[in-house]
Amino acid sequence: MAFRLLAFLLALGGILSCESRFMVYNTSAGIHPTKLNVHLVAHTHDDVGWLKTVDQYYVGSNNSIQGACVQNVLDSMVPALLADKNRKFIYVEQAFFQRWWRDQSEMIQSIVRKLVQSGQLELINGGMCMHDEAVPHYIDMIDQTTLGHWFIKKEFGVTPRIGWQIDPFGHSAVQAYLLGAEVGFDSFFFGRIDYQDRAKRKNEKSLEVVWRGSKSLGSSAQIFAGAFPENYEPPSGFYFEVNDDSPIVQDDISLFDYNVQERVNDFVSAALKQANITRTNHIMWTMGTDFKYQYAHTWFRQLDKLIHYVNLDGRVNALYSTPSIYTDAKYATKRAWPLKIGDYFPYADGANAYWTGYFTSRPALKRYVRVMSGYYLAARQLEFFKGRSSSGPNTDSLADALAIAQHHDAVSGTEKQHVADDYAKRLAIGYAETEALVASSLACLVESTSPMECGNPTTKFQQCPLMNISYCPPSETILSKGKGLVLVVYNPLGWEREDIVQIPVMMESISVQDSEGGDVESQLIPITNPYLKLRSYHVKAYLGRNAGGAPKYWLVFSVSVPALGFSTYSISHARATGARSTKSSVYKILPGKNSGISIGQGNLNVAFSAEGKMTHYINGRRKEHVELSYSFYSGSNGTEEDPQKSGAYIFRPNGTFPLSPATETRMTVVHGPIIDEFHQQINSWIYQVSRVYKEKEHVEVEFIIGPIPIDDGIGKEVATQISTSMKTNKTFYTDSNGRDFIERIRDYRTDWNLEVNQPAAGNYYPINLGIFMKDNEKEFSILVDRSVGGSSLSDGQIELMLHRRLLLDDSRGVSEALNETVCVENKCTGLTIQGKYYFRFDPLGEGARWRRSYGQEIYSPLLLAFAEQDENYRKNSRTTSFSGIDSSYDLPENIAILTLQELDGGKALLRLAHLYEMGEDEDLSVLTSVKLKKLFPGKKIGKATEMSLSANQERAEMERKRLVWQVEGEDEDTEVSRGGPVNPAKLVVELAPMEIRTFVIEFDQLDSVSDA
Amino acid sequence: MAFRLLAFLLALGGILSCESRFMVYNTSAGIHPTKLNVHLVAHTHDDVGWLKTVDQYYVGSNNSIQGACVQNVLDSMVPALLADKNRKFIYVEQAFFQRWWRDQSEMIQSIVRKLVQSGQLELINGGMCMHDEAVPHYIDMIDQTTLGHWFIKKEFGVTPRIGWQIDPFGHSAVQAYLLGAEVGFDSFFFGRIDYQDRAKRKNEKSLEVVWRGSKSLGSSAQIFAGAFPENYEPPSGFYFEVNDDSPIVQDDISLFDYNVQERVNDFVSAALKQANITRTNHIMWTMGTDFKYQYAHTWFRQLDKLIHYVNLDGRVNALYSTPSIYTDAKYATKRAWPLKIGDYFPYADGANAYWTGYFTSRPALKRYVRVMSGYYLAARQLEFFKGRSSSGPNTDSLADALAIAQHHDAVSGTEKQHVADDYAKRLAIGYAETEALVASSLACLVESTSPMECGNPTTKFQQCPLMNISYCPPSETILSKGKGLVLVVYNPLGWEREDIVQIPVMMESISVQDSEGGDVESQLIPITNPYLKLRSYHVKAYLGRNAGGAPKYWLVFSVSVPALGFSTYSISHARATGARSTKSSVYKILPGKNSGISIGQGNLNVAFSAEGKMTHYINGRRKEHVELSYSFYSGSNGTEEDPQKSGAYIFRPNGTFPLSPATETRMTVVHGPIIDEFHQQINSWIYQVSRVYKEKEHVEVEFIIGPIPIDDGIGKEVATQISTSMKTNKTFYTDSNGRDFIERIRDYRTDWNLEVNQPAAGNYYPINLGIFMKDNEKEFSILVDRSVGGSSLSDGQIELMLHRRLLLDDSRGVSEALNETVCVENKCTGLTIQGKYYFRFDPLGEGARWRRSYGQEIYSPLLLAFAEQDENYRKNSRTTSFSGIDSSYDLPENIAILTLQELDGGKALLRLAHLYEMGEDEDLSVLTSVKLKKLFPGKKIGKATEMSLSANQERAEMERKRLVWQVEGEDEDTEVSRGGPVNPAKLVVELAPMEIRTFVIEFDQLDSVSDA
Repeated sequence: MAFRLLAFLLALGGILSCESRFMVYNTSAGIHPTKLNVHLVAHTHDDVGWLKTVDQYYVGSNNSIQGACVQNVLDSMVPALLADKNRKFIYVEQAFFQRWWRDQSEMIQSIVRKLVQSGQLELINGGMCMHDEAVPHYIDMIDQTTLGHWFIKKEFGVTPRIGWQIDPFGHSAVQAYLLGAEVGFDSFFFGRIDYQDRAKRKNEKSLEVVWRGSKSLGSSAQIFAGAFPENYEPPSGFYFEVNDDSPIVQDDISLFDYNVQERVNDFVSAALKQANITRTNHIMWTMGTDFKYQYAHTWFRQLDKLIHYVNLDGRVNALYSTPSIYTDAKYATKRAWPLKIGDYFPYADGANAYWTGYFTSRPALKRYVRVMSGYYLAARQLEFFKGRSSSGPNTDSLADALAIAQHHDAVSGTEKQHVADDYAKRLAIGYAETEALVASSLACLVESTSPMECGNPTTKFQQCPLMNISYCPPSETILSKGKGLVLVVYNPLGWEREDIVQIPVMMESISVQDSEGGDVESQLIPITNPYLKLRSYHVKAYLGRNAGGAPKYWLVFSVSVPALGFSTYSISHARATGARSTKSSVYKILPGKNSGISIGQGNLNVAFSAEGKMTHYINGRRKEHVELSYSFYSGSNGTEEDPQKSGAYIFRPNGTFPLSPATETRMTVVHGPIIDEFHQQINSWIYQVSRVYKEKEHVEVEFIIGPIPIDDGIGKEVATQISTSMKTNKTFYTDSNGRDFIERIRDYRTDWNLEVNQPAAGNYYPINLGIFMKDNEKEFSILVDRSVGGSSLSDGQIELMLHRRLLLDDSRGVSEALNETVCVENKCTGLTIQGKYYFRFDPLGEGARWRRSYGQEIYSPLLLAFAEQDENYRKNSRTTSFSGIDSSYDLPENIAILTLQELDGGKALLRLAHLYEMGEDEDLSVLTSVKLKKLFPGKKIGKATEMSLSANQERAEMERKRLVWQVEGEDEDTEVSRGGPVNPAKLVVELAPMEIRTFVIEFDQLDSVSDA
Repeated sequence: MAFRLLAFLLALGGILSCESRFMVYNTSAGIHPTKLNVHLVAHTHDDVGWLKTVDQYYVGSNNSIQGACVQNVLDSMVPALLADKNRKFIYVEQAFFQRWWRDQSEMIQSIVRKLVQSGQLELINGGMCMHDEAVPHYIDMIDQTTLGHWFIKKEFGVTPRIGWQIDPFGHSAVQAYLLGAEVGFDSFFFGRIDYQDRAKRKNEKSLEVVWRGSKSLGSSAQIFAGAFPENYEPPSGFYFEVNDDSPIVQDDISLFDYNVQERVNDFVSAALKQANITRTNHIMWTMGTDFKYQYAHTWFRQLDKLIHYVNLDGRVNALYSTPSIYTDAKYATKRAWPLKIGDYFPYADGANAYWTGYFTSRPALKRYVRVMSGYYLAARQLEFFKGRSSSGPNTDSLADALAIAQHHDAVSGTEKQHVADDYAKRLAIGYAETEALVASSLACLVESTSPMECGNPTTKFQQCPLMNISYCPPSETILSKGKGLVLVVYNPLGWEREDIVQIPVMMESISVQDSEGGDVESQLIPITNPYLKLRSYHVKAYLGRNAGGAPKYWLVFSVSVPALGFSTYSISHARATGARSTKSSVYKILPGKNSGISIGQGNLNVAFSAEGKMTHYINGRRKEHVELSYSFYSGSNGTEEDPQKSGAYIFRPNGTFPLSPATETRMTVVHGPIIDEFHQQINSWIYQVSRVYKEKEHVEVEFIIGPIPIDDGIGKEVATQISTSMKTNKTFYTDSNGRDFIERIRDYRTDWNLEVNQPAAGNYYPINLGIFMKDNEKEFSILVDRSVGGSSLSDGQIELMLHRRLLLDDSRGVSEALNETVCVENKCTGLTIQGKYYFRFDPLGEGARWRRSYGQEIYSPLLLAFAEQDENYRKNSRTTSFSGIDSSYDLPENIAILTLQELDGGKALLRLAHLYEMGEDEDLSVLTSVKLKKLFPGKKIGKATEMSLSANQERAEMERKRLVWQVEGEDEDTEVSRGGPVNPAKLVVELAPMEIRTFVIEFDQLDSVSDA
């Protein structure tokens, strides 16, 4: 038997004494003028879906996947903040906050309101989610931010001051200037920038900059932007979640393991290290990370102690802070900051870890989000025209679903499969309600004798959300003689629009009339097998039933639709004597067994070689060489030196392999009065149609890709190359979230001397609207139908990555391979995607016009609604044509309506956007006016108040409060063009290039007896 | 691109609606008279040290080992209980609760007081820890329970009603009747009983019983006892800790995954399953487990919902409850219950998983705890005599360390090594303070001219806590001629005592005098090499320094000491002419090369064969055959059929191997006037001394075992066998926590038909005081110096397991092999232990006298204090002999003072214990009286109030409140002998067999002018 006397003499003293030792920690420190100030920002990062769905994260279910419960975070925050008025906390994701808010008692709500008012709880960023910055469309970013900001304004009367995009995988110019400066943020913080960039910035103390994201708006839309030195987590050893194993501050001398001095030393040392790479005597510590503060008390208990003892020590000054306080402290130093332009794409966190795969991951989800985005824009217009009803269907659930889908693990494609399914389900539910709203709104407009009067419409309009898989029950009926189909075609754009409509039909004998009964030329294009296969498989997969008899043709005809309005067409069985659709002439040819192919009967001709290879683009002015090809990258399984795999986030190719068109498969040529097509089966799992419209000068390329074979055990990332003979000098241009274009130079970064490790992955950029390149004479532009990754990996060539199927996880947390499948009766096959891109040559300096205007058409396709033209339909008088704006007025060609939406109390939210950048087009990149009065025929504008972008404060107020940051080496502000103030009588709005202006419009009551 | 429309129609409805849905759950359910009542008991089980130390668990440090922070539990409990007055919580471990309490503000303390008063927070069990039940001594169990109960009484004015020993590994009779009924508990709940027993009890609905743990006290000390059906956790799927993955109740129809009906069904089904094995319409669910409720809100949130929805469902009645409410509900049914006698040892949770290894695990720690326990008892007496001082040293920290060491992962030996070190450190610190107290108290008593007056004593007494490794600096000095050493010998027992003192000395020429100067016969026994090696190695290991010159001899002499008092002896260099110590005669002999050996010169002779094997025990009356041997079990590494390994908890042998004494090693025979010894090296790592004292009839066997070799990769469990020729018919007796003896029958259980799977491990029982067996003529008893495991695996033989060293973990959570080492300068060797056991033959019916009286001497050894007998010492007048009780009075032979301790306000706590069981001894198992007045000479007893065992309420009050449980098939209460009420004038206390009576004694002021 042996005594263990280990150092007990040391420990005598206070040990085991029983006197009370209730401690009051001094947490009152503010900013110290000379010491290093360590701003402790208590925060949680709550993904609005990732490994679990948003609802699972909220309630804390499915914890076997990830222990995370946002309800805990918010529940525990309240008493933790009440316990000490110096404690502060920030909260970001409104999707969670709103769920929580409606669960709370009035008492808790009232407490939380006080916490917000006192600044203890600061709601920052404030959108529904922390949206991704690579793949969302800027309209979605605005909408989801607005949704959150409105809620915050309504419930708390405050406006978020800080952009807090700490987790997204790279940062966009649009985020900085539009979703930053233009929503009134004073600063913008983030955690992820390229590792090479970060190293240089640490060295130069330039992690914190003034960022001007827009060439056009320059310093008028700049923001103070700070990249964190490592990530958005606490310094190593300062994690205090329940069960975290960082050493807690043990300050009870009556217990063993007292460690106050040790912990203070750790703190000071981490602070000094960060001070070394930071300008001014202010550094920020992000005290939290993913889903932390489930029991907020565990963090604050330690933070209280750290502040108390660190400040007693006195070497540095520790304080409870928020990004707002930090920002103000930085600002108060009156320093000038390095200037940053452009963006922070692509992001790499290692030599072989370029996060450029996710630009394309889950292409079907990306397309679904984009389609819903355009539909939501149109639906809000129709909701406005009809008037929101409290009882009927509305657009709110689609708004919510779309907002959530912008999350940086949603549309980005970096979530688990079941979570991707959840986003899609939410969109489908939101769509279903909105579809009903759209149908009833159209019915109202059709049935009402005067605009804006809607009774109880009887017309049942049907729409075809599954048109993408050639499935449209209302148009697939066999029309008996004398019966017909009414097609209402709605145009959400602000201009009258000529476009082609394309619907599947069963019959060969069809005639189309406009609303005046005039015959409309139409063409029937046979629906080829690959489309029919897609249709039958996916109807079964997603609707759980057989698709029924297949339609034989696409019926195609031109329509003309007024701005924000509709036209009506009727489709009927052709009478023997009347006009009827032209059947396309169809040739099937074998590669090499022909003398070359050409399609296009209008302005544009496209030539193919005898083997089926596209060779030339010929319009009236020029003949341009162009070739299309496909290849795949085999996804890396990691190498011995670096185990990094290609996955949902990361594009790490292990070689690239061309996919040559089959030489034995027949190709199909379709000619007709409206459309010419060239169909070819590239290989057993890629089908391509090249399409040319009469009177259009772009080529439409439609692809069906999948299932990508994996029976060789190799994950594949499928790309297409569009090659020209242009000399592009490594330079190309990609859009930022569908808005500004940014110059990209292959193997080059503006901000640092790039070490090229991944020649393909490291040159990929996100594409939302399009990509273009130019030489001394011309521009070559490609537009896309969803976000994709792309690049120009050799001069004159553009590459788009269209689909990815991978077999390994890339170790960024999702722990699943990106291997999407579609299942019928438990038999699953790899996901097949279908999509389009569009290309066109233009003379140098003239490409923007097509990119901007056709880009609008891609984003806002015509909305089709069908009704049976039975007796009931015809006997009522009908409105066959409608425009929501003054019929004498079209919007200027360079201005778009981003939002027209009814607000509470009959007000309207209107966003107008200049579509062109400074210098982008000789004629269109100019200050342009819009007459507001023309936009609201039949209403009288009482007041038009200009608002911040997210409409949560008046623009004037926002400008008044805005911090004016100084840029290093810049003495004076440069002049930036902006539209002037709006004269309340004239109500004419000027917009400068790239400007977006947001208004809340109040209407005077017309014809009403008096104000209540 | 494909839409995912999964069942969205189903989900329409309330989805994503934004109206407030603040829910108020109806949690008010009480007991329902006819439905099945599911008592939801929210609890946490907080080990007072196990994988982490008690302080680490409290503050939540060292979380890499185990995520556990009791501070979180208690912090989060308060708001959770405040949030709903129906919520209830129980808390058990006062070691944690007291730490927490002294950290709290007065506001929180006041809130918690209200929660306790309202019954929302119920403090149950209430000791400092949930003590083990196999290896602690009953005095330690009482002391640690008292410590907790006092605190609760003082702070909250309440007395715990419920025994809650949910985790200990088997349950003792003493726990049930003494620490249960006698502390006033109404019921007692636990989680672990033998798996075979449990199966039978579930089948017979006899998990809940009336338990009478004491033969002697019978129904007067019975308790309602409930074993849980599985463990102390919630039913599967009802775990709600932060990050637990049980399905939460998702009752928000506006979110996905609504599951209320599913969860209600789960609940009802689990309830009905338990109802099937439980009598009455009340079942208890233990809603919690180890270190849960770190964020109590997460549990209560779900429990609220379950109660609300289950009761809406109505099939069963769910309610917030506590074990008290459950107990009262059971009682209210007026049912009779099965009777349980004896105990629940040994515990097995599988065929090869007998938790009987821990009876011996960490034998050094077990001994340390036992030594400290006896020392604490003595020190409190001395503290009482001196009077507690607020400033000076006291016994509190030893009390606390000892209390914590009784935890079921402390003295049990089932903690991690660093935690075992922590317990030892606490004991060492507590000892150090108590040692100072003892020294000053003795100095006071020695220096004071009248008792109970203590100035500022100058005598510096030294003690020798490391005497066990032959290290005693004060006695190891070379005494110069004329100088001497004063030895004060304190006797904590209530009788005058003759005993042998043994101290290491350097000199050969020594004389010993008593306080009158009379010569005392003494003997010098050479200290043999194994002891010197132990000394030098462990002094270095534990004190970090060289032990210095080694003492040559043990100086041995007889002393006579008054009850609760001391005698003084002086030791000096023998003068040429005076008396001097007798040097022992020492023979060294080789096995086989002699004609047999015999030791003992008084009443007892022990004979050995020529080979050194003990053969006979010979006293005046009889010659008994007796043999000693050693063996080891090789620890199982698991088998293919069952991976269970032998480890800290579990004894699973894989064969047993005899250890034969070496035939080439010389044996040593020591003869002397006081002690005869026979030393033999059993093998290279076992050394044994057989020792016989003149005038004593027991044999003392001292062993040094270790380091147990493991270079063969085999863990070993070392046992010794003591064999007689008795016919014991499978029957033997082991004590319950050092108090009652319980009959054990090999391969047999009283309560069920035992299936024997582990013939050794399954017959092991815990031994604290001793083990004995008998035949028609005699008894053979063995007493031990610490808790060990033992058995009688064949008739006439007793086996004790003395040491264990194992190489694998036995998968009960500790995740370490039980492989204790001792290190010097980073070189570690397996732990060597040294210890003793004692055996004796007695005529049938007479063994108890030795077992009880000598057992007291083992537990309470003489306390030795040394001072230099310099001029300073001699020049003052000294008290050389002292008794704390009336010098004319000894306690009756069958009564012991368990506690004499000063309370606040000068009161005394006195516990008197009858040492004999009913029928155990013809003369001594009788009602016996103690004269209280004699125990406090010089004081006048004002009032003696009889208290419950833990002294937290008056005994009368306790009896008044006690629930009287009915036993099945028993119509009337049987008469039980108990001492009668104490006449306040006579102050004579009667004690019946096994009775312990506890008094708070108030004293009248003597010689004081008036009451203040």
